[in-house]
Order: sequence, then C-alpha cells, then structure tokens
Amino acid sequence: MDGIELCYASAGTLSRLVQSKEISPVDIIDAHLARIEATEPMLNSFITLLPEEARAAARRAEQEIQSGNYRGPLHGIPVALKDLFNTGGVRTTSGSRVFDNFIPDRDCTVASKLHQAGAILLGKLNMHQFAYGPTGENPDYGHMHNPWDLELISGGSSGGSGSAAAAGQCTITTGSDTGGSIRIPAALCGIVGLKPTYGLVSRSGLTPLSWSLDHPGPMVRTVEDAALTMNVIAGHDPNDPASARVEVPDYTTALTGDVRGLRIGVVREYFEAPLDPEVEQSVREAIAVLESLGAVVTDVSFPMFNDSQAISGAILMTEAAAYHRDLLATDGDKLYPPVRLRLEAGLFVSAADYLRAQQARSVFDRQARGLLEQVDLLAGPTEPITAPKLLEERVQAGERGIGTTAALTQYTRPYNLTGFPAISVPCGFSEAGLPIALQLAGRPYDELTVLRAAHAYEQATEWSGRRPPI
Amino acid sequence: MDGIELCYASAGTLSRLVQSKEISPVDIIDAHLARIEATEPMLNSFITLLPEEARAAARRAEQEIQSGNYRGPLHGIPVALKDLFNTGGVRTTSGSRVFDNFIPDRDCTVASKLHQAGAILLGKLNMHQFAYGPTGENPDYGHMHNPWDLELISGGSSGGSGSAAAAGQCTITTGSDTGGSIRIPAALCGIVGLKPTYGLVSRSGLTPLSWSLDHPGPMVRTVEDAALTMNVIAGHDPNDPASARVEVPDYTTALTGDVRGLRIGVVREYFEAPLDPEVEQSVREAIAVLESLGAVVTDVSFPMFNDSQAISGAILMTEAAAYHRDLLATDGDKLYPPVRLRLEAGLFVSAADYLRAQQARSVFDRQARGLLEQVDLLAGPTEPITAPKLLEERVQAGERGIGTTAALTQYTRPYNLTGFPAISVPCGFSEAGLPIALQLAGRPYDELTVLRAAHAYEQATEWSGRRPPI
Repeated sequence: MDGIELCYASAGTLSRLVQSKEISPVDIIDAHLARIEATEPMLNSFITLLPEEARAAARRAEQEIQSGNYRGPLHGIPVALKDLFNTGGVRTTSGSRVFDNFIPDRDCTVASKLHQAGAILLGKLNMHQFAYGPTGENPDYGHMHNPWDLELISGGSSGGSGSAAAAGQCTITTGSDTGGSIRIPAALCGIVGLKPTYGLVSRSGLTPLSWSLDHPGPMVRTVEDAALTMNVIAGHDPNDPASARVEVPDYTTALTGDVRGLRIGVVREYFEAPLDPEVEQSVREAIAVLESLGAVVTDVSFPMFNDSQAISGAILMTEAAAYHRDLLATDGDKLYPPVRLRLEAGLFVSAADYLRAQQARSVFDRQARGLLEQVDLLAGPTEPITAPKLLEERVQAGERGIGTTAALTQYTRPYNLTGFPAISVPCGFSEAGLPIALQLAGRPYDELTVLRAAHAYEQATEWSGRRPPI
Repeated sequence: MDGIELCYASAGTLSRLVQSKEISPVDIIDAHLARIEATEPMLNSFITLLPEEARAAARRAEQEIQSGNYRGPLHGIPVALKDLFNTGGVRTTSGSRVFDNFIPDRDCTVASKLHQAGAILLGKLNMHQFAYGPTGENPDYGHMHNPWDLELISGGSSGGSGSAAAAGQCTITTGSDTGGSIRIPAALCGIVGLKPTYGLVSRSGLTPLSWSLDHPGPMVRTVEDAALTMNVIAGHDPNDPASARVEVPDYTTALTGDVRGLRIGVVREYFEAPLDPEVEQSVREAIAVLESLGAVVTDVSFPMFNDSQAISGAILMTEAAAYHRDLLATDGDKLYPPVRLRLEAGLFVSAADYLRAQQARSVFDRQARGLLEQVDLLAGPTEPITAPKLLEERVQAGERGIGTTAALTQYTRPYNLTGFPAISVPCGFSEAGLPIALQLAGRPYDELTVLRAAHAYEQATEWSGRRPPI
C-alpha cells in the first residue's frame, strides 16, 4: 500500500493491517501528514495541526501494538476533531479568533474516548464560527474548500471535517449537527456522515450551538467506519445532562448487507420542495437499489416537514443567543458579521415565541414518530442541490431560486427537531462531477437499522470512497 | 353522628361507616349541603354548586352500596374541585368571567378518576383568576374568606379549596400548586395540603398556569385523607406529556406512626428569612415532636433557597404569558387588573432570560437534591406568617416588612422548581387563633416518607381537624 492508498483506506481496512502488524501506525500517520502538506494549502481543512504530537503518538502506538497491547479497531488510526470539541492542552477555537488562545484543561468526552481507544489526533478542523451556518466559510482561519471543486463550499458548519475526510487527509473526523452540520458537508463532499440519536453521544466539553438540537457524530468515508467510531464514542455520560441512559450495541453487527423486508418510506413532500432534477434522479435510483435488495418501499406523507425551517430556526437562534450572550457583549465586534447578526437577532426573540416554537416542535415530533410506526426508515435526498459556490447567497434548485441556507438545511433540520438518527451516504455524481447523497432516518436509538440499510446500499453500489480530483 | 359531625369527619372515618352501611351517602351529602348553605354567604368558597346533581349521585351511591357494589374508600364521599379542573357538562371558569359559559365536553383525568371511585361532586371551587396569585381574591366571583377570621384571606390560588375543607363544607378538595397554591391556603386555613411530585398526578384537562411548575394535589383535613385521595388520583396518564411512568404504591401503607431513624433536615436559611416569631416557635416545637418520636433531626444548609423567588418567578410569568397570550389579546380588559398586569409583563421576557432562568433552575435543583442525599426530609414552616388581611399588599414578618406575595411563596416555591413532594400540615395556632403549619418535603416520588412523617406528627398532636369559629 503506497502513501495515497493508506490515506484513502478505511479504518476497517487499516485496523486489520495494524492488528496483524503488516503496517505500522507510524507509516499511516506519516502518509496522512504528507497528504495534508500537499493538499492543505488548497483545502484549508485544519485550524490546528499536530504533526509532532501525532508522530510521537504513532510511535507509542506502534510500541504498544508490538508488545501485544492492541486496543482495538481505532488503535493507530488518524482522527481529527471539529474545533469545538475541547482537547486538553490543545487550543480549541470554535472557529473564532476570540478563542485563538483558549487551551482547555481537559478533553471532551468524545476526545477522551477516542484517545483511550488508541486513535491518534492529527489536529483540529476548520468550521463555521460557533457552528452557526451551513455554508462553512470562515474569515478568521480562512474559508474551507470542496475537494471536488475548490471554488465550491465544503458545506458547514463541519466543513473542515468534510473536506479532510473526503480528500484523504484523515481517516476519521467528527462533526456536530444542529441543523445539518454533519450531513450537509458529508453530502457535499461525498463522504458518510451520521447524526446519531439525540443524547446518544455526549456533548460534554463541546461548545454548544443550540443544546436542544446539538448532536455530535462521525464523518468518515464508509459506513463500516461510522459503526467503528460509534462503538467508541456512543454511550451514557453523566456530564451531559441530556445524555441518554441506553444500552449501546456493537454497531458493526449492523453490517450484514441484508435489507430484506425492511420498510422504507419515501417522503412524498421531499420531492415537492425545491430540488435539482439530477439529485432527484440519483436519489430515486438509490431507493430503487434498496428495493432491488429486498426492502419494501412505500410512499409516506409528512405534511409538516417544511415547517421544520421555522420551528428549528426559532429554537436555534434563541438558544444560540442565550448561550453566547456574554460573548456578544464583550467581543461582538470580533465575530464574523453574519454570525454576529444571527446571534444578536436571537436576543430579541420573546420567551413566548420560543415556547410556541417548542410547542410546535412537539406536534412536529408526533407527526414524525407516527411515520416510523408505518415504516422502519425514512428516505430522501440529504441535499436538494450539489455544492454551491462560496459566498453565494441564493442558489437554483431545479426551477426554483432559494436562499442557500434554506436549501442546505431543507432536508436535514427535521431530524434535529425529532432527534432521530440520520445518515447521509453518497449515491451518485452530477454531470459536473459533484457528489449527491441519500439520507436515511430511523427511530430513536435504532442506529443499527440506519447503518444496516446504508451499508447494504454502499456495498451494492460504488459511490462511497471515491477520490476527488485534488 | 349529627350533621356537623358528618361535615367534620374525615373520609377515612366516613368511608368505614359507609362501607358498613351505618350511614348513607345521602345523609352525608345532605349534611354538607346544609353546611354550605349556612356558611357559603360568609366564605364564598364555591363558584358553582351542584346540589341536585350531588343528591342524585348520593342516591345512586346508596343504591350501589346497598346492592353490594362498594367501590372503595371514596365511594359516597363529597368532593369539590378547584375551578380549573375541567368537568364534563359543568362550567369551568378558571376563576374568570371570560369563561363563565365554558362547559367542557369531558372530565379532566383527576375528575374522571374521582368519579370512577364513587366520590360525589358538590361543586367547583373559587380561586384566584387563572391560579395566578397566592392571595386568593376574585372580583368576578367574589373574594374568598378565611373561616378562622372572615377579614383575612384564605390564601391562594386554591383559596376556595382551603376554606371549603377547613369549614366542613366538603370532605375532599383538590387544588393546583405552581408557586405554593395548594400549600399556602392549606397553611392559612389549617388543613392538610399535599403537592405531589411533579408528573405524579395528571394535569390533563386542567387549565395550565406554568406547565413546568404546575402540580395538582389533594387538600383535606387529615393526612390519611391525603393518602386515600392520592390512591385514586395518582398515576401515569398518556394525555399529560409530563406524566411520570412510575409505579404507584398504596399510600395508606405510610400511615404507620413510626418515624424512628428518619433523617429530618432543618433548613437553616429558612430561619434567617423574614419570619414571624410565633410561627418559628410552633414550627420548632413541631420538629421537636418528630425528634421525640425517634426522628434524627439535623441542621442542613440550602444557600440558594431564596433564589427560588427570582427563578420561579421568571419561569412562571413567562409560561403563563405564553399560554394566555391569545386571551390577553382578545379579552385582556376583562381580566382582574393585577392578573392582567402579570400576564402582560410575561410577554416582554426575552427567550434568553427565560433560558437563563431554566439554567439557574438546574443549578438550584442540584443543590436541593444534594440535601436529600444527606437527609430523608426537609422541614420548616410552610408560611412565614399567619393569614394576612384581604388586599393587603405588604405584611410584617417578625421585624421585617415584606410584600405579601413574596412572603406567602417564600417557602413554597423551592419545591415547585425541584418537583419534590411537599406537604403542609397544621402545627399550632397563633395567639390570635390563626393556624400555623409545618412543611415537609421529600425525594421525588417518595410521597410515602412525606406522608409517614406528617401522619406520625398529626397523631402525636392535636392540631389537625380543628374547627374554625364559623
């Protein structure tokens, strides 16, 4: 395996070679650092790089494994974290120069679990400031660029995670998803992004955007790698007040390839919204593939789906403003103006309006849960469009013009409101060569079914793990 | 047993006589209707009286029992509900003329359960409009009066429940408690009031005041009657989204009289707040009685206790305004001006402030839960003063002057924030002959311990069930 192959190999593949001592973590890390050196000037995926720390960790991992202390599938595997995951001793900026010198005392729970599992931290990933925006630009640390076309956005807010994983800069990345911030860059960059069930992965040590909507999760190149990462990061954490007390299964048991009898509901209203015809065609073909594998596909109706924009927008802007209120007062002028504007607007939401939005959310949630009594999964596009240009405020989705943020969050926000697990998995390319993605959402805590369908689809097609031209 | 004795007998006593057919529900209801006729012009406890319906129900109950279909301890027992508990076919005003003609289609869950248990509805009880105020005045249906002194308030918002139970107008009444509205009138009128754990008694079919603080519960003359009522009204209800999924015990098993080894924490800060010395003395004597019965009494510190005013005040005003917003727009001018003012003020709370209050509530809650790791119960006064005069805006509590609302809710609001069960039980009389009360609060869902201590205290003393001079 040459350097570039090491960079595009999955954690699943690498771990088998590491465990059998066919390759060393040192080689893996060196290959990735070289890849980062070659591509980072174009992509700008990282805010902080840790080459020396990573090399030292790789040597320790090599020693441990040589002496028979293999920790498991992530041992020696390169990982990078969105820069709102606190890392002890390593600055954590949340994407803003205001926190350029903020060095947390200790790791967030996710970082700590990955560290314990032997994963090697390559660095901290670029992001939209405070995760507030799906377009992924960042004037403080430089805009992120899509490896499939450098003039396009990698999506947001976890844009650095999307471009790093897609371009082979890192095997496993993490993101956080409040209105789509894992699934949007995953879709636009052509990788796999899983937003787990609300409360399944700890937020302790993460900078909140909107605590009732925030979900951390893996951004990787294969469904197997999402399962391997979930095996490490999922589970109850008393330090996150919303953490769920549930049993965590072995997520790799979902990788059976068998979807016979699985009931998949295709949300009719998804195809009545603004939607690029190329995307629609790829997604319909993807659903047909699942049907050909034995899934039972039916039409379902989710009339409130489009209300998720107004409901989650109101909740998000309000909780974000409540959290960042003191920062606005002291350092408002140092924030990216669009982020500052959104945060300040949130201060003017009345409590009565916020509570109405939470009440509307309950109604929305009941309707969504009703659908998952009829079917096991809800299917549709992750995004109505392929990656738009940087700083483009409106886009064309089929025949309709629509605001970029509204377009990018159109299909993702519903599952932040309900907390359902939702995965984005590559399902094709546009004529311009840009990735298109299928979104599958399941019942709370039923990640196994979500992963099973996504994996079976991935195995039956060849869209995952494609290498961008960069 | 003569008429007045029937009116002052407990449900426990009456039920034994009803079951053994020594007395008939018809006699019980007739005695109560006579008592109401004699006292109601002075007390004004009821908004709606149902004499004919109650007599007919009593005759049906008599027949059922004669034919061997005894339903249990509440069969044939008179009950009256605060007028925000919906009653099918019987108008439910929430204390406002705006709803003078509102006749619900069906019973709230509590009314339905009491009906199924054979209790006989005498009528609907007077209250502060929309339950928003602890002072219990009501210009629409006439102010409520304290049976111990008609110039004094019976407390609020469940003032009619307090005066009706205290004056022998009814055996069992219900109230709802958002900032103390069960415990305040119970204390001021000299009866037993239990605010159960949040979510233990269904709110389905009740007009909300502040949904995250509202608790329905029994207002009765003995602890046994509180247990008998809880046996009927407690339990999960899918129609109340906050209803707890917990097993409901037989609450009468708490009536053992045995408090040996029970750890009772006396909250030090309670005695540093404004407090009438007569009240302090009675409460300290009451705690000494529990100690003499074998309880282990210790001092505990609850530094945040006084913050409950600001925290619960902000949450209450906000949720109340959110709920009543449309009413304010259409009928604001028809509301009692102090209630209207409070509701309108709530519309101006920002969501950021409301969320801060909910965050402060979490911190408050953790501190309170910490205390209940040291002890089984928290003890102190229910009220810092005896009943004040009607429409008096400030009162004297010991050497300090204080707003009446602030004084009345000083010791009650903490347990609305935490949701802990809390009981008010009579523990003495002032020189002026006014009731004084002990408050005992316990762990969530541990009503058994709360009832056990209150019952043991009641049995060892003679304060419960005293008859006011009316």
